[in-house]
Amino acid sequence: MKKFLNSPQTLLDESLDGFVAAHSDIVVAGEERKFVRRRNLTPGKVALISGGGSGHEPLHAGFVGLGMLDAACPGQIFTSPTPDQMFAAVEAVDQGEGVVLIVKNYEGDVMNFEMAAEMSDGRCATVITDDDVAVETSTYSTGRRGVAGTLIVEKIVGAAAEAGIKRAGLQALGQGVNRRTRSMGVALTSCTVPAAGKPNFEIDDKEVEMGVGIHGEPGRRRVALASAHAMVEEMVNAILHDLSPKRGDEAILFVNGFGATPLIELYLLYHEAARMIEAAGLKAARSLVGSYVTSLDMAGASITLSLLDDEATKFWDAPVHTPALRWGV
Amino acid sequence: MKKFLNSPQTLLDESLDGFVAAHSDIVVAGEERKFVRRRNLTPGKVALISGGGSGHEPLHAGFVGLGMLDAACPGQIFTSPTPDQMFAAVEAVDQGEGVVLIVKNYEGDVMNFEMAAEMSDGRCATVITDDDVAVETSTYSTGRRGVAGTLIVEKIVGAAAEAGIKRAGLQALGQGVNRRTRSMGVALTSCTVPAAGKPNFEIDDKEVEMGVGIHGEPGRRRVALASAHAMVEEMVNAILHDLSPKRGDEAILFVNGFGATPLIELYLLYHEAARMIEAAGLKAARSLVGSYVTSLDMAGASITLSLLDDEATKFWDAPVHTPALRWGV
Repeated sequence: MKKFLNSPQTLLDESLDGFVAAHSDIVVAGEERKFVRRRNLTPGKVALISGGGSGHEPLHAGFVGLGMLDAACPGQIFTSPTPDQMFAAVEAVDQGEGVVLIVKNYEGDVMNFEMAAEMSDGRCATVITDDDVAVETSTYSTGRRGVAGTLIVEKIVGAAAEAGIKRAGLQALGQGVNRRTRSMGVALTSCTVPAAGKPNFEIDDKEVEMGVGIHGEPGRRRVALASAHAMVEEMVNAILHDLSPKRGDEAILFVNGFGATPLIELYLLYHEAARMIEAAGLKAARSLVGSYVTSLDMAGASITLSLLDDEATKFWDAPVHTPALRWGV
Repeated sequence: MKKFLNSPQTLLDESLDGFVAAHSDIVVAGEERKFVRRRNLTPGKVALISGGGSGHEPLHAGFVGLGMLDAACPGQIFTSPTPDQMFAAVEAVDQGEGVVLIVKNYEGDVMNFEMAAEMSDGRCATVITDDDVAVETSTYSTGRRGVAGTLIVEKIVGAAAEAGIKRAGLQALGQGVNRRTRSMGVALTSCTVPAAGKPNFEIDDKEVEMGVGIHGEPGRRRVALASAHAMVEEMVNAILHDLSPKRGDEAILFVNGFGATPLIELYLLYHEAARMIEAAGLKAARSLVGSYVTSLDMAGASITLSLLDDEATKFWDAPVHTPALRWGV
């Protein structure tokens, strides 16, 4: 295992301290690093909280700030945060208008966020994301996994909260965006959890895992390394088949790296994906290319397509000021 | 070689097409993809052009836009662009106020930008960056190499050009920022140039290249993989020794990933570096953490420290709207 590391036991705390120090104009850490929250909360606004296992940076802490999340709870690597962390975050950021929890569909996350919601006495509404079309159930999930599309839900619901929409409206909006958002990924390599010290799974030099999850869970099939064109075609076709868009629809096209894939390759994937969705009669009206929802040091990428309507477009374009996404401010 | 690729011969063109399509609100490609330029040029402004071998994305094309570059010339991977490309860029973006060329100190780049400047009949002034303290001469450079600090020069000079400063003033400013900016990097792995198909250099599982260049050129020494703390200490000490800052100085602290190092590790490095420069009496008044000046799929990182004065701080904070850096807009 070749990583920048002092000790696997201290990595998360040291990295969080570095994150908070580097972005101290935007965020502060909660007591015992249970959560990261905005430095400046907005009175009267519904609060948005997300969280999940670490190792997917910048998701979620990198999306805390104006126009997106109010707090994020980082679990240990690839491990759900505890209900105690989430409850502490609710207590810290609820402004009396309640909280929306955005939760990726993994059993541990869903269970712990449910417990935190119960502890919060009816203050929380939940949006569960399950945008991954690759498989119907997986190692850590019943039903589809929540992956890179979660960023889009957090951005759009975050802007809506900033605009003053209340809790029930935000929940309905988030559920609607999730239904119109689909993703699929492919891994060229495994990732290595520092405490384990060895790759999460074995993969041959000539093979890829098509439909991989963001923890290295198995996808649809193990296939021979093919051209970028062929791999993007399989992913885009799977997404389009599931999403059944109409010709003329506009969408966000999001090409996401898993952590070890350079930008020159991600733009090649974007080039392929954009041509394919245009050939299907869609328009990539908005684009995002970069490593935003990662799997530690995995080489690989996912493609996400999110169908837009006027409301979603307005909230996607609205100002955002977080460590990892920033525009209009 | 495990990459997203159709063919090594088409990678650069396809990736550039994807880049321009994804950021079509900001950039357009020049004829035959000789350069990428801003979609909207500003009459009366001195134009800024940079460029260099590809494989360092988002440098330089990712920094084209309001408040930074007017054009960038991408060479083949790890290969200087041609004087013909640079001259075409000068012709496309010069608004009658002349051009400042920002050039990383590599022999091929310096020679070709010099030829382009000659072809341009006195319209160009040049700023050469050489911020890498690791070695005094290297495989492709006489004198120090220009590395991640180039981003800081481009940002500050870009904002100054936007503010109406003329060519001689921009050149002096850029040279001053370069003199106050120092970097050093370390590689955990090699990188693989797609056309070569094999790693640029061999490195043992237990070793790192301390002081590596951004093409995988040898650094100071091959050492055993140590703790993040120890590796950051060697880099920060080398930078501080060279820069000789005064106690109380403010600086930009920039932790840069080489392409395959995840953000969780980069924030750990930031944590270590920030504590060390504070212990030396400096203040990290501004921070940047991410993979901005990369070496294809190399795992590794560099640390850059750039001493600030009021003018540099003002121009660093000024609005920027490029594919890879954006704030205030």
